[in-house]
Amino acid sequence: MNRLVPFMLAAACAALSVPAAAQFAKPEDAVKYRQSAMFLQSQHFGRIAAMASGRVPYDAPAAVANAELVATIAKLPWTGAYAPGTDGGKALPEIWKEPAKFKELSDKLVDETGKLEVAAKSNNLDAIKASVAAVGETCKSCHDTFRKR
Amino acid sequence: MNRLVPFMLAAACAALSVPAAAQFAKPEDAVKYRQSAMFLQSQHFGRIAAMASGRVPYDAPAAVANAELVATIAKLPWTGAYAPGTDGGKALPEIWKEPAKFKELSDKLVDETGKLEVAAKSNNLDAIKASVAAVGETCKSCHDTFRKR
Repeated sequence: MNRLVPFMLAAACAALSVPAAAQFAKPEDAVKYRQSAMFLQSQHFGRIAAMASGRVPYDAPAAVANAELVATIAKLPWTGAYAPGTDGGKALPEIWKEPAKFKELSDKLVDETGKLEVAAKSNNLDAIKASVAAVGETCKSCHDTFRKR
Repeated sequence: MNRLVPFMLAAACAALSVPAAAQFAKPEDAVKYRQSAMFLQSQHFGRIAAMASGRVPYDAPAAVANAELVATIAKLPWTGAYAPGTDGGKALPEIWKEPAKFKELSDKLVDETGKLEVAAKSNNLDAIKASVAAVGETCKSCHDTFRKR
């Protein structure tokens, strides 16, 4: 019993511990997961975009920290959170009707946010501006096709 | 407007001590941000906890990937998302009444999730089990005091 207690606490903390294969305990968790990732991503991307547009002063360490987070979080929604049967939120049915196009655009996001991280680490504001624009266009092109208005 | 004023003042004060990157456009965004981070964290922690408890087979690369995410995301909620004036969700008023205790527990989470990442990278399942238990206890101790049931 004593040996089990820590795991029971851990399970309580994790709320819903699920088998790695199943990824999510229920479809609602997949929806919440991708929405959570998108929101965090939008916040951290917004902080770099504010520097790129000049609305806040350029802060190189903050740009790097935010770019690292954006590049990390940008990878998360595509590993099961849009599995078939997880419709909900603002997801349009086209996601499951046009999986090749959806994958192309999600791959492009991962690629462009990786480039944004490189640009931030180069400490070159012009490169950051160009990369912020490319990431923003990638977000938009996917949302235009696959997200409810 | 009345609701926003304290937040704006808090944000203005916070700007003196934290990077501009730590700000939110409105209190609701701070609530949504910390909830998003907590949810992603619970999902990825749950995937390691499932290995630690033996409910799913130990998968070393997956354990490392999840531990890295947990350690990264565990740092996020404490850089402005609980600023004064951001009550909402399951946050109890004690967060702002006992800031030293809240900071102690949030620092402990960052510390313990950092140790979990080290344990996962050591590829030592016993070390992972011990660290999963420690992280779980840390989550619980903070939730018991600072989160609505």
